[in-house]
Amino acid sequence: MGAYDDLMAREREAQALAQVAGRLGWDQETMMPRGAAEQRAEESGAMQAVLHGRRVDPARGDLLAAAQAEVEASDAVAQAQLRHIRRDYERAMRVPGALAVALARLTSRAQGKWAEARAADDYAAFAPVLAEVVRLKREEAAALADGGDLYDALLQDYEPGMGAARLDAMFAEMRPRLVALRGIALEREWPKLEGRFDSAAQLRLSQKLAQVFGYDLNRGRLDLAVHPFSSGSGDDVRITTRVSETDPFNCFYSTIHEVGHACYEQGIDPTYRVTPLGQGVSMGVHESQSRIYENQLGRSRAFCGWLYGQMRDAFGDFGIADADGFYRAVNRVHRGYIRTEADEVQYNLHVMLRYDLERALIAGNLSVGDLEAAWNDRFAADFGTPVERASDGVLQDVHWSVGLFGYFPTYSLGNLYAGCLHAALRNAVPRLDAQLEQGDLAEATAWLRENVQQHGGLFEPAEVIARACGAEPEAEPLLAYLDAKFGALTG
Amino acid sequence: MGAYDDLMAREREAQALAQVAGRLGWDQETMMPRGAAEQRAEESGAMQAVLHGRRVDPARGDLLAAAQAEVEASDAVAQAQLRHIRRDYERAMRVPGALAVALARLTSRAQGKWAEARAADDYAAFAPVLAEVVRLKREEAAALADGGDLYDALLQDYEPGMGAARLDAMFAEMRPRLVALRGIALEREWPKLEGRFDSAAQLRLSQKLAQVFGYDLNRGRLDLAVHPFSSGSGDDVRITTRVSETDPFNCFYSTIHEVGHACYEQGIDPTYRVTPLGQGVSMGVHESQSRIYENQLGRSRAFCGWLYGQMRDAFGDFGIADADGFYRAVNRVHRGYIRTEADEVQYNLHVMLRYDLERALIAGNLSVGDLEAAWNDRFAADFGTPVERASDGVLQDVHWSVGLFGYFPTYSLGNLYAGCLHAALRNAVPRLDAQLEQGDLAEATAWLRENVQQHGGLFEPAEVIARACGAEPEAEPLLAYLDAKFGALTG
Repeated sequence: MGAYDDLMAREREAQALAQVAGRLGWDQETMMPRGAAEQRAEESGAMQAVLHGRRVDPARGDLLAAAQAEVEASDAVAQAQLRHIRRDYERAMRVPGALAVALARLTSRAQGKWAEARAADDYAAFAPVLAEVVRLKREEAAALADGGDLYDALLQDYEPGMGAARLDAMFAEMRPRLVALRGIALEREWPKLEGRFDSAAQLRLSQKLAQVFGYDLNRGRLDLAVHPFSSGSGDDVRITTRVSETDPFNCFYSTIHEVGHACYEQGIDPTYRVTPLGQGVSMGVHESQSRIYENQLGRSRAFCGWLYGQMRDAFGDFGIADADGFYRAVNRVHRGYIRTEADEVQYNLHVMLRYDLERALIAGNLSVGDLEAAWNDRFAADFGTPVERASDGVLQDVHWSVGLFGYFPTYSLGNLYAGCLHAALRNAVPRLDAQLEQGDLAEATAWLRENVQQHGGLFEPAEVIARACGAEPEAEPLLAYLDAKFGALTG
Repeated sequence: MGAYDDLMAREREAQALAQVAGRLGWDQETMMPRGAAEQRAEESGAMQAVLHGRRVDPARGDLLAAAQAEVEASDAVAQAQLRHIRRDYERAMRVPGALAVALARLTSRAQGKWAEARAADDYAAFAPVLAEVVRLKREEAAALADGGDLYDALLQDYEPGMGAARLDAMFAEMRPRLVALRGIALEREWPKLEGRFDSAAQLRLSQKLAQVFGYDLNRGRLDLAVHPFSSGSGDDVRITTRVSETDPFNCFYSTIHEVGHACYEQGIDPTYRVTPLGQGVSMGVHESQSRIYENQLGRSRAFCGWLYGQMRDAFGDFGIADADGFYRAVNRVHRGYIRTEADEVQYNLHVMLRYDLERALIAGNLSVGDLEAAWNDRFAADFGTPVERASDGVLQDVHWSVGLFGYFPTYSLGNLYAGCLHAALRNAVPRLDAQLEQGDLAEATAWLRENVQQHGGLFEPAEVIARACGAEPEAEPLLAYLDAKFGALTG
């Protein structure tokens, strides 16, 4: 296997360099001195140039062709490696170098403009540069689409194999049921956590939660960052969380969410480490792991019973009388404008709003000039509230400023996948609630590792879920779960 | 200036990548999860391969030739940039790729063998792999020397322009006077710090010391590591220290030492940032900065008066009655085998021992099999004590295992340079002691920045010192300083 081995040696080196570049990003958010930002931009740019140079090296294409002729059709692992390499190579070769450079420069500038505009609540100040981003992203999409749908082409960067038509169908099923459920939930009173919670004690409990959910701190670490994230693959997967003295749930559920992402990376078959198969296969599958850890497991009644005891031990009496009240506080449904603060009922409505708008932008059916009004109309329709400030509306997310079109729907897809996996997990582990009541996640996380995480990039995203669940992914399990959970909570 | 500008753009990218590789090293010593070591070796190897590929790229040689024809002789900065690039390119091209790879692999293995042998106090277990390291280093030296002296060729990696003949002359002047001074100093009793010193309070005072000595924490950070070091250039220069509850001087003087290195990097003309001129010019000049901060300034009677007050504030009464006693405790001369624990009087004797032995190894005048006996003989001659354990003798330093031949003498050269700079600084700042008594290092560090640090790689190492001092570097100022200081301390 001369060509295949040569190709894989090159790809290992590229994957190792990508890990270094990723860790540079981690450092920037956690450790970097403030005064180093300008120099860091030059360092990151140099790393990206190296990575890009390797992606589009014609020798890579030659080796790939030779390796494809060489590998047996029955060698599933090698075939999957080649599939990932081929997809990455073709994607890189399709986009003209000048366009890639222009996009990198423009989105760097646009992110700064977005931050300024958001601080000033001034969409008009952001619209011109966003229009430029949309123009170049459509150009890039056309280069990638090869005559096909522009939005579908962009979607492949985040969820290979997925298409807007399929998303449309799933979301169309979800939206009216979520709007209805939202209406019912908001009629109820929900307890809210009050008081102050010691930061150091929050971080100690975060460390404990991370371990309870199976995060291996010998191959990772937990630090603070403004926006929590997980970073890295293989044996060096780091997570961050944040601490607010008045909002310990933010700390704990951020930690559990990132632990879900990190356990996915840590759980991949170690023989795939530092190869194209050695990462989570898509944003949607990644989000399915973070969400099932955070929501279906972490916000379950059974686990909340255990967590209530832990919080009582850590903080004493904090004004919530029993585990049932605690469960209601954890799952509180409330009016709000901000996606990242949304509860399980409303979160996907936020995502669908963005999905429909960005599809229209990329299709050329909506102009950037009309975007704010379209946002506000849709928000009023789904959430029943007028948007009064752009920072609560169209300016709240960074994604579009940095060119992430096609990314938003993977959040909801992750929730949908989590719904499917949760149903299958409940079938496979009938004693799950009894375990969760003890803070025992071992069997649940082992099932996820066995059925999802270990495969890394071996299967296509939808196939991973279908294999784990024994059925194609669909919206009904998530909707049934939400109906049951919030039906019970609202009586 | 087409070729020059093109060349410099490439070099900037290479320098930026070198910064990334350096930060990976920092991460490994401070933040990396323990279980990530194997993966990290692959990541570091990939970065080194990228850096090496850029160093030996024939296009670099072509651009360099074109740029040399283009740049005016009067453009001192551009000429200095070209000098550094040329030296680096020629060095890289002279060593066959297979030898470079063999050395990298061998030294990685040898470092592990050294650690095992040191733990077992068994030189014989280390000797075979060390013999292999010496063999390959002699091969490398022959490739670099181009018919000249092998050891001189290796020395150029650490101290460009320096030669063994000149070192011999300087060290020959130093050795008898240091042996004599050592004999006198060891006849006296020296107070020793006793008791326990809170770790957190040590770290707080370390942060204060770093700032007092001019370290810019907005462009750096202070963390813990097993072996203190400074890392990075330009706007991201990080230092580490260590804490032992029974030995606060180790923490404080490690911090001050690393701050000296870091201030050198932070003090370089910002227009040189991320270029070949944007780093300290040699190991010797680097060590001159760490040593003058640590010793001539940090261990002066005047500064010890201020530090005594700081330590009293931080730790209360710690059993030393007054500032004079404190000064004696800080400068305590004591018998010991270990270089890194040696005082100002004996430190250079440790270095010269290693220098003479490694010169003989590289010249082929000493075999690896005879090295331990040669070490022990020389140690008995200079220190008057038999070495009883290899870990106290020939196995104490990591340097030779990783192929660092030619590095040791730069430690003493740094001390010698520091002696020259200190004499010039005293002339330039007559009120220095009055400032040090107040913990005010501003004028001293400004003088060092102005006269040494800002130049980065603009001048050759010896020229930096000669320009700052108005005379060629020589041993006499250091010896006169030590005679005066320890003469007074020993009455």
